[in-house]
Amino acid sequence: MSQENLQALQRALVEQQVQGFLVPRCDEYQNEYVPAADERLAWLTGFDGSAGLAALAHTHTALFVDGRYTLQAQQQIGDQPIEQQSLATADIANWLCNALESGDTLGFDPRLHTEPGLAPLKQRLNEQGIELRALDTNPIDQIWPDRPAPPSGAALPHPQIFTGEDSQSKRQRIAEELKQRQQQALWLANPEVCAWLFNIRGSDIPHLPVALSMGFLYQDGSATLYLAADANSEALQKHLGSDIEVVHDKDSLFSAAERQHAQSVWADPQLTNCWTLQQLRARDIQIQFSRDPITAAKARKNATELEGSRAAHVRDGAALCEFLAALPEAVIQQNFGEMEAVQLLRSKREQREGFTDDSFDSISGYRSNGAIVHYRVTPESSLPMAAEGIYLIDSGGQYPDGTTDVTRTVALGAPSESARDHFTRVLKGHIAIATLKFPAGTCGEQIDAFARKSLWDAGLDYAHGTGHGVGSFLSVHEGPQRIGKVTTNVALEAGMIVSNEPGFYLTGEYGIRIENLIFVKEREGFPGFLEFEDLTLAPIDRQLINADLLSDAELLWLNDYHDKVRTTLANAVDEHTRDWLTEATAPITKE
Amino acid sequence: MSQENLQALQRALVEQQVQGFLVPRCDEYQNEYVPAADERLAWLTGFDGSAGLAALAHTHTALFVDGRYTLQAQQQIGDQPIEQQSLATADIANWLCNALESGDTLGFDPRLHTEPGLAPLKQRLNEQGIELRALDTNPIDQIWPDRPAPPSGAALPHPQIFTGEDSQSKRQRIAEELKQRQQQALWLANPEVCAWLFNIRGSDIPHLPVALSMGFLYQDGSATLYLAADANSEALQKHLGSDIEVVHDKDSLFSAAERQHAQSVWADPQLTNCWTLQQLRARDIQIQFSRDPITAAKARKNATELEGSRAAHVRDGAALCEFLAALPEAVIQQNFGEMEAVQLLRSKREQREGFTDDSFDSISGYRSNGAIVHYRVTPESSLPMAAEGIYLIDSGGQYPDGTTDVTRTVALGAPSESARDHFTRVLKGHIAIATLKFPAGTCGEQIDAFARKSLWDAGLDYAHGTGHGVGSFLSVHEGPQRIGKVTTNVALEAGMIVSNEPGFYLTGEYGIRIENLIFVKEREGFPGFLEFEDLTLAPIDRQLINADLLSDAELLWLNDYHDKVRTTLANAVDEHTRDWLTEATAPITKE
Repeated sequence: MSQENLQALQRALVEQQVQGFLVPRCDEYQNEYVPAADERLAWLTGFDGSAGLAALAHTHTALFVDGRYTLQAQQQIGDQPIEQQSLATADIANWLCNALESGDTLGFDPRLHTEPGLAPLKQRLNEQGIELRALDTNPIDQIWPDRPAPPSGAALPHPQIFTGEDSQSKRQRIAEELKQRQQQALWLANPEVCAWLFNIRGSDIPHLPVALSMGFLYQDGSATLYLAADANSEALQKHLGSDIEVVHDKDSLFSAAERQHAQSVWADPQLTNCWTLQQLRARDIQIQFSRDPITAAKARKNATELEGSRAAHVRDGAALCEFLAALPEAVIQQNFGEMEAVQLLRSKREQREGFTDDSFDSISGYRSNGAIVHYRVTPESSLPMAAEGIYLIDSGGQYPDGTTDVTRTVALGAPSESARDHFTRVLKGHIAIATLKFPAGTCGEQIDAFARKSLWDAGLDYAHGTGHGVGSFLSVHEGPQRIGKVTTNVALEAGMIVSNEPGFYLTGEYGIRIENLIFVKEREGFPGFLEFEDLTLAPIDRQLINADLLSDAELLWLNDYHDKVRTTLANAVDEHTRDWLTEATAPITKE
Repeated sequence: MSQENLQALQRALVEQQVQGFLVPRCDEYQNEYVPAADERLAWLTGFDGSAGLAALAHTHTALFVDGRYTLQAQQQIGDQPIEQQSLATADIANWLCNALESGDTLGFDPRLHTEPGLAPLKQRLNEQGIELRALDTNPIDQIWPDRPAPPSGAALPHPQIFTGEDSQSKRQRIAEELKQRQQQALWLANPEVCAWLFNIRGSDIPHLPVALSMGFLYQDGSATLYLAADANSEALQKHLGSDIEVVHDKDSLFSAAERQHAQSVWADPQLTNCWTLQQLRARDIQIQFSRDPITAAKARKNATELEGSRAAHVRDGAALCEFLAALPEAVIQQNFGEMEAVQLLRSKREQREGFTDDSFDSISGYRSNGAIVHYRVTPESSLPMAAEGIYLIDSGGQYPDGTTDVTRTVALGAPSESARDHFTRVLKGHIAIATLKFPAGTCGEQIDAFARKSLWDAGLDYAHGTGHGVGSFLSVHEGPQRIGKVTTNVALEAGMIVSNEPGFYLTGEYGIRIENLIFVKEREGFPGFLEFEDLTLAPIDRQLINADLLSDAELLWLNDYHDKVRTTLANAVDEHTRDWLTEATAPITKE
């Protein structure tokens, strides 16, 4: 990595008369994956992880990353004069307070930050006499010569056979909430929100099938929709109907809200960038900050979406099983490693109806690489595989009827007793969540420990959450619900899809994770109680299970689950895989 | 209840030129139990529950109570013109917004409210053009003719054999935190904080062995201590030493802080009343709001305090066992009911060394009364008892070496299969907490569900927390830790004492609760992991246990626990109770 880009930015900051600048890894929609045009952090520093922030202050530059990216950042920074620091608000503030002086100004691009995100930093800097200033244009965009064009894929109607509810009905439902809250408009902050509300999808973001968009929904159910791309089809116009005004520049978007006499707008502070708030305030539109109601509505899948997810999981499970069945033969070939495994799995998914993309970059971790929780295989890191050791594959697909995310850990040779013990403890945690019955109102943080108890008994734990929400042909990481140690205060509700993915990682040796998607449903015969149902279909490696550590009830769950996997997938896989399935799902008994 | 008091207050409000007034059930220290002089709510409305608020607005009056007091409040209000409402901030705000008009002023006594407590109400009222005004004097105090004198018990030194750390050492420890935070003084908001910091106790509050006090701790470890009572002994003066200035009026207290050049004071917003903040601001003293460090320090008991608690629990357990052993004979006497049971238990505790008071009003609930979670027996409610049905007794004692809190549920005749099933599910939850191993950093809300799982399996639950912190010869309800559904974000730390009290309540039939005090300790052989150890010593009724529902590990815990109870208490109880203990703790086997 040369230092050219860094030096060019430093010169640009001098011109803009600011002494520092923030370069977060995000776009104006706060997306998890960002278009190439928004990879400013990677352009500047070389670091291309999914989370991070660079800060410039006079002649100093720091890159802030979290624990999972420490090593990767170090390698990618190379010999550039960039300090590496931990991505904690306090640490960023400390670094900036040291590197800047009273009277200095720190610039930021208001499109790339939210007010709650900046608030603690702002307070600390102000106490030191340092000003935070929103810049009109991002200096990187001015000096990045070959900056990729922003994506401009067309928005496409997402048919009702997949959504189960037309946009008008959704808009009326949300408009009712606007009336109750006496708000004239709701700010639609990002493409996911728009995708759900208008039943549209696109292809602007890697792994996330959306069209770049934002907008306003009004109290009467009508809306203004900004679409970044203007090449939209007649079919889309017909689909959207006359209640929805489509605009292609943001001035028109905010003017439309003014025309609608939207004097007061409901906006989610976590989703809404500072630039949008500037625009609203400049037009004297009052802002009522509150949690976005669409995020909550979108999380509760309807019967059609759940049926779609079931169907997508049959196809995805079949693809994964064909991959797993082929693995023993593949690993004894030369030149088969973690990279080739990803390609093989992808080729199996591509054969399945409706597959459009992976739902995220696959984690393909052999032996010690499996112990790196957020490992992403590259040609440099890819380990060659063989008929021994433990292999972890975490992957998923995007299908129009559903989004999948599944992790299986398999022994490619005879596993050690210790690995079987670890695997079985993870499995016990997985089953504890899968079989849990709980009252309505229960939040993910209240049940997370069930997934960990068997590990805790042995003095072990894992340093990630147990489950995240999953969208319906949308993001594989979707809020507001999750299962983890972190407080959400969000109750698990019927229709919500979450992952169930306890794990265990022995640094330098192996990683273990067992992940199914499950959804919340009413518990029959027990009003006010909920339970989970499994969506994911793939065998759990019998070689890694020590049945003597399982209770009778746990063993029953496992054998029932395997029975369901076999009977559901038998006719969806090739003959070799069918034979493999019979063996991989055979009932287990205690020794 | 006559309406005289209500009418007198309405006249007083007219004189003070306010259109409304708030009467909370608390004192200036935000105590849970309050001195008789602070029972303004009871004087005004007749309602003497432990939580509630009356609001007056023009000629209307409402009493706000929570679910557990609905019935009691109704009876105690009688035919007074007082509306009864639910004690939720939104409901209080709604009622006031309806009953008051724009331009009206709502008075409040700033000693009896905190800023965070009033903030949501203030915002709602201000939006409606209604002003909240702090009154200099509480109008009730001016018109309450026979208002009891405030308590004025002497403060007494609490010896180091019980505290394990002298006040100077404690003050130096906390002063270090002041230095780190660059605060010149810490506001000592209430008697519990002062009791711990200065190693003093008193007798001003029912069930809480403290002397009314507040004060300032300074960066050099010196302090100003306000004591309400001025009749303090030489022994106390000697105990406090020359670094602590004792004052008896509050003006002197705040002047002392000024003299110490305390330009910036650390105060806990949840503990500090509005009047105190007024005093600080009037003296241009800056306030830094943050969680009180003494609350956290006080929660972590040292080795001496834990040893004291163990010793107190032996005496308390012996008293409880003598009561339980006497119960079968007692209930077949005439005129023995819930009230007499409380008296019998109290008489057993009074025989024990160091007993000073119950640690709270005993809950003595026979049959259907046991199903009322916060039941407090009165002569009117007391049910006569007999050799049948289920009885719940929740009680505790204050001893100089420790505070106790224990609940046992016993069958006075042969219990039904259904009652045994419910009891055993509660017991499984109790054992799940007692035996849990967990990593440091775990909060109570993350483990609460283990106590409920067996009930959840049957579609059941209980509507209270699983555990609360307990003080060391201090409050039986002590923060900051707790185990419950509610978010605390407070990690359980070694030395913390909490209760473990799952329950089940069948309205109209019976209540079940099994409560032990437990403390957190390092888990031997597993660095970074914690576990609990039981303090409470009393048999769990074997008649109510269906052993077939217990796992082998649960049965082992139970028999081990009973073994410990018998061997520890055998020489501490009378002969009859010793025989009873042998039977009550005999090993259980599966049928």
